[in-house]
Amino acid sequence: MLKGKHLIDPKDFTLKELDEIFNLAHQIISNPKEYSDLCKGKLLATLFYEPSTRTRFSFEAAMMRLGGNVIGFSEPNSSSVSKGESLRDTIKTVGCYTDIAAIRHPQEGAAKVASMYSHIPVINAGDGGHQHPTQTLTDLLTIKTLKGKLEGNTIAICGDLKFGRTVHSLIKALSRYKNNKFILISPIELRIPSYIREEILEKNNIDYIEITSLEDGIKKADILYMTRIQKERFFDLAQYERLKDVYILDGKKMELAKKDMIVMHPLPRVNEISYEVDEDERACYFKQAKFGMYVRMALIAKLLGEA
Amino acid sequence: MLKGKHLIDPKDFTLKELDEIFNLAHQIISNPKEYSDLCKGKLLATLFYEPSTRTRFSFEAAMMRLGGNVIGFSEPNSSSVSKGESLRDTIKTVGCYTDIAAIRHPQEGAAKVASMYSHIPVINAGDGGHQHPTQTLTDLLTIKTLKGKLEGNTIAICGDLKFGRTVHSLIKALSRYKNNKFILISPIELRIPSYIREEILEKNNIDYIEITSLEDGIKKADILYMTRIQKERFFDLAQYERLKDVYILDGKKMELAKKDMIVMHPLPRVNEISYEVDEDERACYFKQAKFGMYVRMALIAKLLGEA
Amino acid sequence: MLKGKHLIDPKDFTLKELDEIFNLAHQIISNPKEYSDLCKGKLLATLFYEPSTRTRFSFEAAMMRLGGNVIGFSEPNSSSVSKGESLRDTIKTVGCYTDIAAIRHPQEGAAKVASMYSHIPVINAGDGGHQHPTQTLTDLLTIKTLKGKLEGNTIAICGDLKFGRTVHSLIKALSRYKNNKFILISPIELRIPSYIREEILEKNNIDYIEITSLEDGIKKADILYMTRIQKERFFDLAQYERLKDVYILDGKKMELAKKDMIVMHPLPRVNEISYEVDEDERACYFKQAKFGMYVRMALIAKLLGEA
Repeated sequence: MLKGKHLIDPKDFTLKELDEIFNLAHQIISNPKEYSDLCKGKLLATLFYEPSTRTRFSFEAAMMRLGGNVIGFSEPNSSSVSKGESLRDTIKTVGCYTDIAAIRHPQEGAAKVASMYSHIPVINAGDGGHQHPTQTLTDLLTIKTLKGKLEGNTIAICGDLKFGRTVHSLIKALSRYKNNKFILISPIELRIPSYIREEILEKNNIDYIEITSLEDGIKKADILYMTRIQKERFFDLAQYERLKDVYILDGKKMELAKKDMIVMHPLPRVNEISYEVDEDERACYFKQAKFGMYVRMALIAKLLGEA
Repeated sequence: MLKGKHLIDPKDFTLKELDEIFNLAHQIISNPKEYSDLCKGKLLATLFYEPSTRTRFSFEAAMMRLGGNVIGFSEPNSSSVSKGESLRDTIKTVGCYTDIAAIRHPQEGAAKVASMYSHIPVINAGDGGHQHPTQTLTDLLTIKTLKGKLEGNTIAICGDLKFGRTVHSLIKALSRYKNNKFILISPIELRIPSYIREEILEKNNIDYIEITSLEDGIKKADILYMTRIQKERFFDLAQYERLKDVYILDGKKMELAKKDMIVMHPLPRVNEISYEVDEDERACYFKQAKFGMYVRMALIAKLLGEA
Repeated sequence: MLKGKHLIDPKDFTLKELDEIFNLAHQIISNPKEYSDLCKGKLLATLFYEPSTRTRFSFEAAMMRLGGNVIGFSEPNSSSVSKGESLRDTIKTVGCYTDIAAIRHPQEGAAKVASMYSHIPVINAGDGGHQHPTQTLTDLLTIKTLKGKLEGNTIAICGDLKFGRTVHSLIKALSRYKNNKFILISPIELRIPSYIREEILEKNNIDYIEITSLEDGIKKADILYMTRIQKERFFDLAQYERLKDVYILDGKKMELAKKDMIVMHPLPRVNEISYEVDEDERACYFKQAKFGMYVRMALIAKLLGEA
């Protein structure tokens, strides 16, 4: 039973609970009309203490497509924070008006704190560089739907593997399923942190390699997960200049990939995937955005106990 | 008949009209589902020329819980004001799109001016330090519901009694009901203004005392209404330092109070009520926030003529 | 069939298609309840890269009065733009969440670019000084409804005819209908641009005069379209001082006009129409705002293929 639970960390849910959500998402995708009044009369609060238009849109559309409605703020300055109120009091008050809340906050742990005092389910919509569990649910639903399974895939992840929270969460999440292999593609400076390598990958005997060439990595991948490389992460600008183009996915590199590989990206992209790749049917990042809405619909419905 | 009326000042409504609103609020509380489509197809405009997240949320949730929807702005810079339009023209235009409006404005009298030119009901959602009538309705509904009556209560009001508009409105409103007694607790510097004392309390022969000790005041109260003391109001900082802790309501002070006293606070609180008091069942400030939503539901439904 | 089309420039629609929209608008006006669930379950995205409260309200109210709902932003800083995303990617992502989008952008051509990559209908809600087609639809519906026809009217247009995009679009739009005559009233400095004179008016053999006196122009007009004169447009301030009052429409000037003339204004007005004129039943600018909502309802319903 997911009713009344919070989602702060993807690990808050068992694999069985995740499956429950993915199954509901698939039912919604097959028959959206049947679910279009499921949360009629229910209200979602979107408390965005830092702007994130895409994530906010995805939550709001999800709630509205279930027949519910939304109140919220999208910027910190219009929030009660400016009057010195604690997050604890804010969530308790918001719980008087609404049925479920999605919180985005620049501080790590903020959503956790809110959930401790909340009478309504709290969903972490991103807390600093820490967690962003609905992005992880999005990624899992995308893989499960497009590859048919969450086990036994070879996942190449390319770009900034050091600072990218999306990537860390995805590796942790996929490590809970059997026989996945990772091809970790990054410049040396942006390698996956050692705690991920040691405590997740090695501890669980997961097959992985670390390489620097996207051309080499793309060949064997079932899934290519692209992320953005940020100039400001480099100490050595000459190295950035050398590496930045290596990680631009274009039509030529796509020729090296399997016919049924899928390309994912959490968006927004800047220039790490050429527009020409959008035309390739293996490009799945906009589908992924759509799965993000569906998985949030399923999540909201489950936490509210409406499905 | 409240249909088509404006609410600018709590005195705009007779006691009978207030009762009509409170009765409807009680019916909504008992059976919210029955009212969940009452205002379907109706639109509320929330015109917030200064941010007030809590008040805005309360109005928006109220309208949505009646099945209506909301358009609006929450910050002055996104409003038409920046193009030099008069409030008079703004409300006339907004009246072309919506069915009822809630206006929050930093200037005293702004809501009154808007109501003079409006074709739709206007609700004052706070105009400077002047009026905030839906807070007063919230306070009255809370007292009526939790104490069973609006007459014959002993109300202790503690904190900044000089500048607090909420407190002045509450005293005026309760003075319209019989046999209420006031215990006014504040530092000398923040005593109730003389016009309230003379024109409201003494003119109506209302029983009141002015004291400085919360411990003394709490003992006889049926209702303790706490407010925030603001440092910047004091000329003498040493005095502030001496007084500020005296007015922090904690578990120890609650031991002095009647078993059926209720603690109210308009929120946001900063530190004038310790978190430990939240666990005391006499702490009613979050319930009060919820009553705020219900009373706004009743108000909107009445002004729209839907109930 | 308007289903799935974009509206970027008023000329995107044939006269027949415009008629389809105006006819639906008239049906909605006669029987709004019948259309109040037409777009239930549908979502409009309002992407406002510059604030325009009135236009945003009109779109949002339109969608909500059709039973649909809205997500969006009203300020550029809360948008994804700050993360460096292209408009192309933004519209593709927004198309994953919503069914139709209204875009307001300070750059000319932005809405056109968005429409090129969009999977959902895009409505241009104003792009810089370029186009604002739903204002033009509003003006046409107002004239058609209040004057009974879009042909054979004498339209006086007064104020800044040089920079006013609303005016240029209106002249272009009315030039598509037969036997309209224009009385163009402006200071010499703010005359209609020569490309409008040559390529629209003269090329189509349209009857027009250019004058500087509002008193002279008002007498023969069936429609008086007022616009704001902006001080900053003048090189010669003395001339501005001389002219600014000449173009203030007041009760006295209204005495010169036909009994069935209508006064229009795109709003916001500053002081170019005296408040006393509001009481004159020929003053139609607030009706015009209301027609703006109805024409957007018809437009949205048509582009979504719901009517």
